[in-house]
Amino acid sequence: MNAVMGPETGATDPIPFGRDAFAARLARYAARVDAELEAILTVPDVPERRLHEAMRYSASSGGKRIRPVLFLAVGDMLGGGSSLMLPFACALELIHAYSLIHDDLPAMDNDDFRRGRPTSHKVFGEAMAILAGDALLNRSYELMLKSVLEAGTESAADLARCVRAMRCLADAAGACGMVGGQVIDMESEGCQADRNLLERMHRLKTGALIRAAVASPAILCGAGPEEEAALALYADHLGLAFQIRDDLLDVQGTEAELGKPIGSDARNGKTTYVTLLGGDGARMALSDARRAALEALSGFGGRASFLREMAVFVADRTF
Amino acid sequence: MNAVMGPETGATDPIPFGRDAFAARLARYAARVDAELEAILTVPDVPERRLHEAMRYSASSGGKRIRPVLFLAVGDMLGGGSSLMLPFACALELIHAYSLIHDDLPAMDNDDFRRGRPTSHKVFGEAMAILAGDALLNRSYELMLKSVLEAGTESAADLARCVRAMRCLADAAGACGMVGGQVIDMESEGCQADRNLLERMHRLKTGALIRAAVASPAILCGAGPEEEAALALYADHLGLAFQIRDDLLDVQGTEAELGKPIGSDARNGKTTYVTLLGGDGARMALSDARRAALEALSGFGGRASFLREMAVFVADRTF
Repeated sequence: MNAVMGPETGATDPIPFGRDAFAARLARYAARVDAELEAILTVPDVPERRLHEAMRYSASSGGKRIRPVLFLAVGDMLGGGSSLMLPFACALELIHAYSLIHDDLPAMDNDDFRRGRPTSHKVFGEAMAILAGDALLNRSYELMLKSVLEAGTESAADLARCVRAMRCLADAAGACGMVGGQVIDMESEGCQADRNLLERMHRLKTGALIRAAVASPAILCGAGPEEEAALALYADHLGLAFQIRDDLLDVQGTEAELGKPIGSDARNGKTTYVTLLGGDGARMALSDARRAALEALSGFGGRASFLREMAVFVADRTF
Repeated sequence: MNAVMGPETGATDPIPFGRDAFAARLARYAARVDAELEAILTVPDVPERRLHEAMRYSASSGGKRIRPVLFLAVGDMLGGGSSLMLPFACALELIHAYSLIHDDLPAMDNDDFRRGRPTSHKVFGEAMAILAGDALLNRSYELMLKSVLEAGTESAADLARCVRAMRCLADAAGACGMVGGQVIDMESEGCQADRNLLERMHRLKTGALIRAAVASPAILCGAGPEEEAALALYADHLGLAFQIRDDLLDVQGTEAELGKPIGSDARNGKTTYVTLLGGDGARMALSDARRAALEALSGFGGRASFLREMAVFVADRTF
């Protein structure tokens, strides 16, 4: 245990928690996720090994790992030393990874690059990219179910919590969550969406998985309804801050000079918080979301230091 | 309860079980699955309702429902009156339905029609078809997890069985099951596959889900290891018979006149049991598989009448 960063599985953080400690713990969480995904996504020597290579290619392509990091941080905050935290966090990241492969497909956003690397269909072909996405989504459930069985839980209450935690992720990922949001995004391209539709789109497309990243570990840890509600509120505002920041980053730099958004969102005819509220309005909404996220954590005291820094990190990031 | 058909949830079939009784019970099982899928796949009044329409379109498009029928039949044979049988059987069918949508995509088999209706991407566009497939796969897990929680199981042993039964389906559907088989199929098109590869392809592509259709209800019913093994053997031979029959049907009618296969498989350069073994060889292999499927059921006595008729039905079907 690193004394500077405080105990990861303890109930309190005895040392004041600063930016450096946050960055170090963020990196440590992300490294745990990277290593576990690497261990999960091996490439067996089988005729269909190219599928496994495609799965590994996309899931190991870095990224900020914000969702699984949130998962692990909530687990640590609530004292969940359970062996299920890491596999469940990785299962969540597999869902995220599959959604990016399918988002990038020619029939969808038709993107050739992601995080500086060619997208899956550019490397493996379109058919394989579709199947690799399918297989990653399915692997998410294979992984959770296997982990629950291998944990050898003998109490019915604990097992029921595992099933609830899986259900929480499943509901967030499907038609009433992420996939539904992708459909709104796709169908509203080129036409001016109103604020209600924009918020619904983000709440489903990115918000649902972020909320699940916080709610699912809370269920696994046996959090009470008040803690669950506070964490869900935190996640909702965190997700909103994340999205507004994304929209602002899309116009940053050019907006100052030209006084109007000229980023890729605008070019693609996308409604964003900036096109809807203007730059100042979006910055004000971001500040509100950031404050509300922090307020939602007030009941957790010092235990929530990492989650607080996460809200600041997400709202202020420049990448 | 219908006296002619015998009890569906009892341990024995008191009345000799003929073709008509089989056909009637088959139709009844299929109707239960159809009705349940209809109830599950409602179209809510939301901005993304088109996604839900696409999901419903593909899952409600008929088909033989062989996998969920097997699931229900095994459950009835083993005396599983559990409320989980029907939702799990439907979850299996949702996985099958998603795989057909993605199989038909332009980047995959590029089929415009299935079961006499335009395929999903012809009706809803390619992007929506991809997302509808994703959402159906995910819905399968949403459905199982919800059903397990709503069943209110209070025993840890029963809950663990539910998790094992879900895992059984998940493992069959993923990269080490169905999706892996699809990749072999895709990659071996146009080149002569040997019998080993052909068998691996079918064992994964269609065999894995058929085996799970039999193994998963056995787990839910708490079957012993001997029963599980016998049922798995039955399923393997049933799956093989299903595939050989498919290959034979592709050349039937024309083969008699021309003495060589001229069906669509041959035109597409696909290796099949007919191209590999010839017509007579394939018919002999079919007969062997059918006999082996029936033999695997010998320990179940009269309880297995429906499953026996199913093997005959699958091996002899003309559609």
